[in-house]
Amino acid sequence: MLTLFHAPGACSLASCIALEETDAEFEIKTVSFADGEQHKADYLRLNPKGRVPALVVNDGTVAAHSKDATSSQGTKGVLTETPAILFYLAQQFPQANLAPLGDNFALAQMQSFNSFLCSTVHVAHAHKLRGARWANKESSYEDMRAKVPENMSTLFTMIEETYLGQPWVLGEQYSICDAYLYTIARWLEGDGVDITAFPRVNAHFKRMEDRPAVQRALRH
Amino acid sequence: MLTLFHAPGACSLASCIALEETDAEFEIKTVSFADGEQHKADYLRLNPKGRVPALVVNDGTVAAHSKDATSSQGTKGVLTETPAILFYLAQQFPQANLAPLGDNFALAQMQSFNSFLCSTVHVAHAHKLRGARWANKESSYEDMRAKVPENMSTLFTMIEETYLGQPWVLGEQYSICDAYLYTIARWLEGDGVDITAFPRVNAHFKRMEDRPAVQRALRH
Ligand SMILES: N[C@@H](CCC(=O)N[C@@H](CS)C(=O)NCC(=O)O)C(=O)O
Ligand SMILES: N[C@@H](CCC(=O)N[C@@H](CS)C(=O)NCC(=O)O)C(=O)O
Repeated sequence: MLTLFHAPGACSLASCIALEETDAEFEIKTVSFADGEQHKADYLRLNPKGRVPALVVNDGTVAAHSKDATSSQGTKGVLTETPAILFYLAQQFPQANLAPLGDNFALAQMQSFNSFLCSTVHVAHAHKLRGARWANKESSYEDMRAKVPENMSTLFTMIEETYLGQPWVLGEQYSICDAYLYTIARWLEGDGVDITAFPRVNAHFKRMEDRPAVQRALRH
Repeated sequence: MLTLFHAPGACSLASCIALEETDAEFEIKTVSFADGEQHKADYLRLNPKGRVPALVVNDGTVAAHSKDATSSQGTKGVLTETPAILFYLAQQFPQANLAPLGDNFALAQMQSFNSFLCSTVHVAHAHKLRGARWANKESSYEDMRAKVPENMSTLFTMIEETYLGQPWVLGEQYSICDAYLYTIARWLEGDGVDITAFPRVNAHFKRMEDRPAVQRALRH
């Protein structure tokens, strides 16, 4: 059994989508940001970082439902960090074909794209509402917030022109990169950036919304 | 042949160390931050992000020097992002034993650790000198700089107490996580944080400095 701790609208949507693309047996537990649940003791015991996503992996039950799960028993532990959870799901459920598992270089390109989203694009966005992570003054938060549209535009221009294949991020193969890009692209409107300025990103976004797994993931 | 674009002192040291741990044929090209080379046209053609590391992979030559390289010919392309480069090297040179390649969950934990360093710890540090990425005013940069010691302390406390195995990050197995943690731990002193406040991190640091591969990497 896999249990994903998720907050609607958060980056954990990417992991929801990936789960929905597999035949994994899983449940979603909602973490209420409104109630600050991510910073309460119960959740911090699970994930000391106080963030979503967190994936609790219990291999015993997984093995009963997927031929591809490893055979060890019991709870294996908790995985955090979107690129790691996505990669784990892609490896654990190879029949879902969510990564170019046979090709070292293509796999590294996949990780590179996800690492860029995680360390640069997500972080640029986070300066809108999470300025208190990196500064103490209201004037700094305001300054950071004001720069978010410009930064997100610059980064999505780079994605549009350099990193986004057709029809999927990696080209022919749909992958976990697509789930992650879609998740972050959903933030553009709130960040004051018009997605239609990036025709390829916009077409990718619509392609994603046609996928049943994405539609199911959005209901969690 | 592999060519790593590296700046002394930068996060690209982790990739240098990993290269030195393998029997790969490689060369290191120094990018001068003092001359702003990372933002000049030549380098931007290679890596539009204007950052190090970047690894140029030419599989033809690699194949001649390593039984484990894939057999395709010619330049495959450029890899960016530390976690992706490290993972590529670990996969491409399995005889160096730099990752738990046979175990999906352990591999995901490895990626999780590296993703945390990349998206959270490195980013916390970057607010000391790179405030202009996220804000426009000198007063904000100052505010960000002032918070770096506290943030790095908090994050290294979490690493010390939760994520650092013995004797290596993943426990018995030395891995690319160790090269990456060591690289970032080298920044603590300049960030105003005393590494001896974290006995396990400090012991890990010393263990790393005893490795010939680390000593060679520091000379690049
Ligand atoms: N590097 C982490 C970042 C996780 C993260 O920042 N999650 C946000 C939601 S998008 C969160 O939980 N924020 C809650 C908070 O900061 O209190 C990942 O990619 O999983
Ligand atoms: N997420 C990237 C970050 C790369 C990065 O920020 N590199 C820094 C050096 S530690 C850099 O090149 N900075 C030059 C600049 O910002 O001009 C990675 O992990 O590789």
